[in-house]
Amino acid sequence: MIGNAVKSIFLENEENLLINGDNVATLTDTNNLEHALLVLTNIGYSKIPVLNKEQQLVGLISLSNVVSEMFDTESINPERLAEIKVSDVMDKNVKATMLPFNIEKILNLLVDGNFIPVVDDKEKFLGIITRKEILKSVNHLAHELELKYDVYEKEIQEGETLNKAFNIYPKR
Amino acid sequence: MIGNAVKSIFLENEENLLINGDNVATLTDTNNLEHALLVLTNIGYSKIPVLNKEQQLVGLISLSNVVSEMFDTESINPERLAEIKVSDVMDKNVKATMLPFNIEKILNLLVDGNFIPVVDDKEKFLGIITRKEILKSVNHLAHELELKYDVYEKEIQEGETLNKAFNIYPKR
Repeated sequence: MIGNAVKSIFLENEENLLINGDNVATLTDTNNLEHALLVLTNIGYSKIPVLNKEQQLVGLISLSNVVSEMFDTESINPERLAEIKVSDVMDKNVKATMLPFNIEKILNLLVDGNFIPVVDDKEKFLGIITRKEILKSVNHLAHELELKYDVYEKEIQEGETLNKAFNIYPKR
Repeated sequence: MIGNAVKSIFLENEENLLINGDNVATLTDTNNLEHALLVLTNIGYSKIPVLNKEQQLVGLISLSNVVSEMFDTESINPERLAEIKVSDVMDKNVKATMLPFNIEKILNLLVDGNFIPVVDDKEKFLGIITRKEILKSVNHLAHELELKYDVYEKEIQEGETLNKAFNIYPKR
């Protein structure tokens, strides 16, 4: 459970959180890895979404997924790349999220990935939420919270733990 | 200026923020790019620190820095990699930080990079602070703040802005 003050400061930046799909570099599942290598090297992002012909999100692919396929026992063999499809090496285990945003879920998913894809109820790709935008919100939160709110340490009754007192979140 | 409650919750996790240099994959500035390609592909991180023989931080190198050097006009030519050194392609414009940690600076630097290198006063590499660990702290902060503290919206006098009232941080 995230408190209301924290949530409300996070959501002040809500309209900037979603980077629209039109502005996100993606690959198609039927592209070959030679094309994927070119795209991933040029855009400067190490991992991007993979869509099918219906614009549905089907996976994520990273530059290292592609480069790994060039290693042929000991030598580097770039010719292999033309024969392999993006769908053969992409990571299909993608955790996407949907609108409206759930800040708690987003913060959780971003611990393990640089971005979260956003889809609609038909899996159509809408865009991404990035760590970069969330960290901008964190900066904003850290600076604004104690300007906008008075923050007082809670008094806990003797013998009572936070956990008991609020019965919401295990004390760490 | 970051408020005390926010700062103190962030610093509860301080000892976990620094990932010790011994546990961070690095390259040496004199390594060639064939070696760099192997290391960067195997570790699964897209960018890592570069050290000199004195263990000082001298740059950062990414998988896409290396792969870019394989493109020979139109074809892919991996043989070039053996002749190029890490120091020739690394990014030398590195923003590092030092101990003790300044949470405000760290939050700011992590908006633009996946990690911040930490060095001592002789530029010796001590480790990194990652977005992953900071986002764990953000999760902790978001959950704990309103359990540990009472948070009340401030009452601003009529005609007075937050900026005037506190004269610290420009209102957005």
